[in-house]
Amino acid sequence: MRLSAIRSFAASLAALALALPVLAQEDPLPSWNEGAAKTAILEFVDKVTAEGAPTYVAPEDRIATFDNDGTLWVEHPIYTQLVFALDRVKQLAPEHPEWATTQPFQAVLEQDVKALAEAGEKGLMEIIGATHGGMTTEAFEAEVTDWIATARDPRWNKPYTGLVYQPMLELMDYLRANGFETYIVSGGGIEFMRPWTQAVYGVPPQNVVGSSIKTEYKVVDGKGVLMRLPEINFVDDKAGKPVGILSHIGKRPIAAFGNSDGDYQMLEYTTLGAEGARLGMIVHHTDAAREYAYDRDTHIGRLDKAMDDAPKQGWVLIDMAKDWKTVFPE
Amino acid sequence: MRLSAIRSFAASLAALALALPVLAQEDPLPSWNEGAAKTAILEFVDKVTAEGAPTYVAPEDRIATFDNDGTLWVEHPIYTQLVFALDRVKQLAPEHPEWATTQPFQAVLEQDVKALAEAGEKGLMEIIGATHGGMTTEAFEAEVTDWIATARDPRWNKPYTGLVYQPMLELMDYLRANGFETYIVSGGGIEFMRPWTQAVYGVPPQNVVGSSIKTEYKVVDGKGVLMRLPEINFVDDKAGKPVGILSHIGKRPIAAFGNSDGDYQMLEYTTLGAEGARLGMIVHHTDAAREYAYDRDTHIGRLDKAMDDAPKQGWVLIDMAKDWKTVFPE
Repeated sequence: MRLSAIRSFAASLAALALALPVLAQEDPLPSWNEGAAKTAILEFVDKVTAEGAPTYVAPEDRIATFDNDGTLWVEHPIYTQLVFALDRVKQLAPEHPEWATTQPFQAVLEQDVKALAEAGEKGLMEIIGATHGGMTTEAFEAEVTDWIATARDPRWNKPYTGLVYQPMLELMDYLRANGFETYIVSGGGIEFMRPWTQAVYGVPPQNVVGSSIKTEYKVVDGKGVLMRLPEINFVDDKAGKPVGILSHIGKRPIAAFGNSDGDYQMLEYTTLGAEGARLGMIVHHTDAAREYAYDRDTHIGRLDKAMDDAPKQGWVLIDMAKDWKTVFPE
Repeated sequence: MRLSAIRSFAASLAALALALPVLAQEDPLPSWNEGAAKTAILEFVDKVTAEGAPTYVAPEDRIATFDNDGTLWVEHPIYTQLVFALDRVKQLAPEHPEWATTQPFQAVLEQDVKALAEAGEKGLMEIIGATHGGMTTEAFEAEVTDWIATARDPRWNKPYTGLVYQPMLELMDYLRANGFETYIVSGGGIEFMRPWTQAVYGVPPQNVVGSSIKTEYKVVDGKGVLMRLPEINFVDDKAGKPVGILSHIGKRPIAAFGNSDGDYQMLEYTTLGAEGARLGMIVHHTDAAREYAYDRDTHIGRLDKAMDDAPKQGWVLIDMAKDWKTVFPE
């Protein structure tokens, strides 16, 4: 090889080395297979970030909302928050003999998954109201923090925070890298999520919208605290989701991600009749091997009307089995 | 002058020129006179931003909450939101003949300031519930935006957003420059404030906590909207302020600023029994010449118990007449 050829080769190598980070950046969604879902995400972000384009959206209006259960982490066979409630119900049961014959408590004590599922969101909130009241918000936060660090899902023998969807983590990162503010808008308890959403999703406490129980301010032992009362304050599900979004964010999202009919109104509020580019996506659980397969026939995360209406609403279904290279981190 | 002396002089000039921006930065609160209030602010920020110090607070926990009426802008002789309500009550009065003899509507129609003041926060919320319902949040936002751009305070013949306190604007800027997240936590209506807080205070909609009426999600004319219902949802005043803070922020503030007994619990929640450095401050309206002078004997922004307890609670009073060089911008 002549000197000039060596030089040329070295220059090519150098150019390649310089290009490598760019190439590595070129796929911001490495856990997503090529397909309609991935394309919809990339095209949407291009549209709203293209300065001068009619579809351009200023960064402060790039609001993206994510359902949590079944959209960001596993919700089957029962909501993780319900698993958390088991321990607390068992702890308190001796003080509440009536729970042995009262639903949904009986279902919790008997680990009757079907009866629990039938109790639905309302049942969940009853259990939360009854078992999560009578303590300060700080005491509750400590309890959640302890539990989430130690509890394990029996199927995978992993912490529940390890059962978040890697492709959705990449999606949240990608949106934030493009100037979006990401919010969780979940039917789950707001104070159940806040202790760990920053570490797991990169979503700080103030960007978490959820269901809540009433709290009361008082001074206890020389400190101002908020006592959690055994009474439902707000259910952030279905038509409650747009209400929660208005209350906490004060802006209409331009992108929303859900997985069940509980997300219908949030998706609709985000996309229906909008003038600019909007993105509504639905995680469709099609992967019994790697996670679960369910849609119409389940009491947890039922997806029926939203799936039927997706084509006319312009919502894009994410087919877990086909669209995701990997499901969980690592 | 010898050449070396000229060179030395030129070098001094250059050094001075370089130092000027630094000197200019040295007083981040130019509208504040030297005194206990200014010193308390500067020392507090030094303490919580000094890395390695036991009083250091990580940026994500630097939460500062500000009352609005009487703390950030003028609230006398009546709340600005009540002035806004006047037009709406007058508009709707023909459809509501009963208002002529029903408080607080009668007071609004008769411009009876005393009766209005006596109706207090509850009366304000009644007026808001009755006059601000029955429209979408977007329609309401448009109405507020129009009004705030055109209405003028009669004493100063200025827009109400021109009657914000320059020293408090500097304080908010200073805190944000030091990594704080600034929030408004007001008894005023959350949707009344959101349309203009970004432009006026640098506080985005999602950082505004306030009182609210109930909203209902529905599809109207092919768009998902939130209808404002004539029913109070939440009163963000007194013991409601810590509740609003928990709901929206999910973290305890380390600094809080108020001006009335309505801010007592927010100040207490921020400072009482805290281990690290905390700052609680109260704007004391002592300046009848430049603004207003009032504390115990007023129905709008009554400051009584909080003033009595300030020394033992460690809250610093801001004496408007003494501590502020200028009151309003420009």
